[in-house]
Amino acid sequence: MTRIAVDAMGGDRAPEEVVAGALEARADGIEPVLFGPAGLDAGELELVETSQVIAMDEKPADAVKSKPDSSLVAACRAVGAGEAAAVVSAGNTGAMLAACFLELRRLAGVARPAIAVVIPSKNGPSVLIDSGANADARPEHLLQFAHMGSVFAEEVLGVSDPEVRLLSIGEEPEKGNQLTLDAHALLADADGIRFGGNTESRDLLLGAADVIVCDGFTGNVVLKLLEGTITTVLDALRTEIVASRRGRIGGLLIRPAARAMRSRLDPDTYGGAYLLGLRGLAVTAHGNSSRRAIANAIRLAARGVEHDVVNRLAQRLPERVLASARSESPGK
Amino acid sequence: MTRIAVDAMGGDRAPEEVVAGALEARADGIEPVLFGPAGLDAGELELVETSQVIAMDEKPADAVKSKPDSSLVAACRAVGAGEAAAVVSAGNTGAMLAACFLELRRLAGVARPAIAVVIPSKNGPSVLIDSGANADARPEHLLQFAHMGSVFAEEVLGVSDPEVRLLSIGEEPEKGNQLTLDAHALLADADGIRFGGNTESRDLLLGAADVIVCDGFTGNVVLKLLEGTITTVLDALRTEIVASRRGRIGGLLIRPAARAMRSRLDPDTYGGAYLLGLRGLAVTAHGNSSRRAIANAIRLAARGVEHDVVNRLAQRLPERVLASARSESPGK
Repeated sequence: MTRIAVDAMGGDRAPEEVVAGALEARADGIEPVLFGPAGLDAGELELVETSQVIAMDEKPADAVKSKPDSSLVAACRAVGAGEAAAVVSAGNTGAMLAACFLELRRLAGVARPAIAVVIPSKNGPSVLIDSGANADARPEHLLQFAHMGSVFAEEVLGVSDPEVRLLSIGEEPEKGNQLTLDAHALLADADGIRFGGNTESRDLLLGAADVIVCDGFTGNVVLKLLEGTITTVLDALRTEIVASRRGRIGGLLIRPAARAMRSRLDPDTYGGAYLLGLRGLAVTAHGNSSRRAIANAIRLAARGVEHDVVNRLAQRLPERVLASARSESPGK
Repeated sequence: MTRIAVDAMGGDRAPEEVVAGALEARADGIEPVLFGPAGLDAGELELVETSQVIAMDEKPADAVKSKPDSSLVAACRAVGAGEAAAVVSAGNTGAMLAACFLELRRLAGVARPAIAVVIPSKNGPSVLIDSGANADARPEHLLQFAHMGSVFAEEVLGVSDPEVRLLSIGEEPEKGNQLTLDAHALLADADGIRFGGNTESRDLLLGAADVIVCDGFTGNVVLKLLEGTITTVLDALRTEIVASRRGRIGGLLIRPAARAMRSRLDPDTYGGAYLLGLRGLAVTAHGNSSRRAIANAIRLAARGVEHDVVNRLAQRLPERVLASARSESPGK
């Protein structure tokens, strides 16, 4: 049984949906352990009692410092202490990052942990990194994201020699903002990465590359826009369909197809994202996660444990990251 | 008859689709004038002969300087000289910007012209500004974009007292990157703008606001992702539908509904985007524009002429922009 520490109080629909999701994930041979207040109805799950809660809008660093016995910080601490194999939270992402910095610490050589989201593209999964940990990033951070995403795609997704592309606003190297121009130059020179150049957001769902690198602001905008657009398109289609009798009959007939498509593209299918670059495994889920999303996030965490994500990164990253950091310094 | 100068050689599918689109738009009481090489089959349209062509991948400033008789530069010049009421090109956007700077010049007080795209959201059109003219922008540029977008929404889209929101990665003022944090502070203090705070990309198609402000890198990523996602979702749905007999019958029945939905959300419906902040009207169309997109871009240009976009901005912008520039200086 893989023990996964779950922040029962994290997310807009906590604790009800989080507990329900943890119970659902349990059936898969995974042992979720809930972190939350005494008296929480945890069903058959183990409850580690915590006395504090970090709200969605609290300032991350302050909240983590002032609430060491919050469900989030305690759940992260359990991973640092080896009492759980991974932590899952749908709470305040900034606070989770801060808690992970404190309780799990960074892998050697990693300047900035980053959020890696698996995007279901037409040609198979793509890793989008960073999708929200670093709103401002420097070119050398993007290089590290490329290395982390590359190792992740290889070890966890089973892609051999993954191709990395830089998200920009034109495929030509000279298209982009100052950050992508500088990052492009670093990536083009980097050893140990198969860099395929820039890609544009319009190709993201078509499988633009195995790993798509960007700063956390851009990545977060992309991720939320993907979700919003998929939902809006399907809702708009439904509205048009139910507007006519012919459409309503057709709508009933295509319902299984629409469900299949949706479950293929729906972000809840993955449920969460890995926080890479830490000495422990952490999965962050959407703030508005449903029980299904929570269950999938817990399964994602278990899969990360199974694939030994942290040790794989620890083994392969330092040399790559440090080597590239060394090769950078003289030229820049 | 409104004369619209059309760069016949701009875009991936030029000149065939551009000429066809111009011919299609003509039926609406608009007089497109083509700019292209001697011998181009312009049908019944007027052809202004030009001897040079700017390719999609040329460096904008160099190309515009070295090719004064290119179809793009000549078309822009015609607007500056009063021989056409607006210019439309599906060519190199950077080159178009450079040509407009040279031939049309900026409105008084405008530091950076910006691309305003009308996004078909659930609650009516929203203006996304800047969607690609300025890959790097400073907070005070975003403030100007907010003013330009606001005047545009009011004068052209007929929205009274339009609400402006800043695209960021959280609704709270303290969420974002350094650019959005600083821009948020400027916008919150600005006179003459109804600032509603931050919005997230997931709400973009739901009508997050009348005007959505961002830097040109982010706006361009957003625009291309919207297009790509809509296309991919519908293609994926089609694939699922045709996979079963039941689905195929349903697919036939919902076809009119799917078409209606698509034409409502399809970017080709608008076909182009205004370049705001110049002393003449310019519309930039997608590089891969079809004849339908070109025709719509020409109609969009004609609508801008009808609504007197340039003069409205000229009349209303300087006081607003300069007033906000003045009010900024002491505090910052």
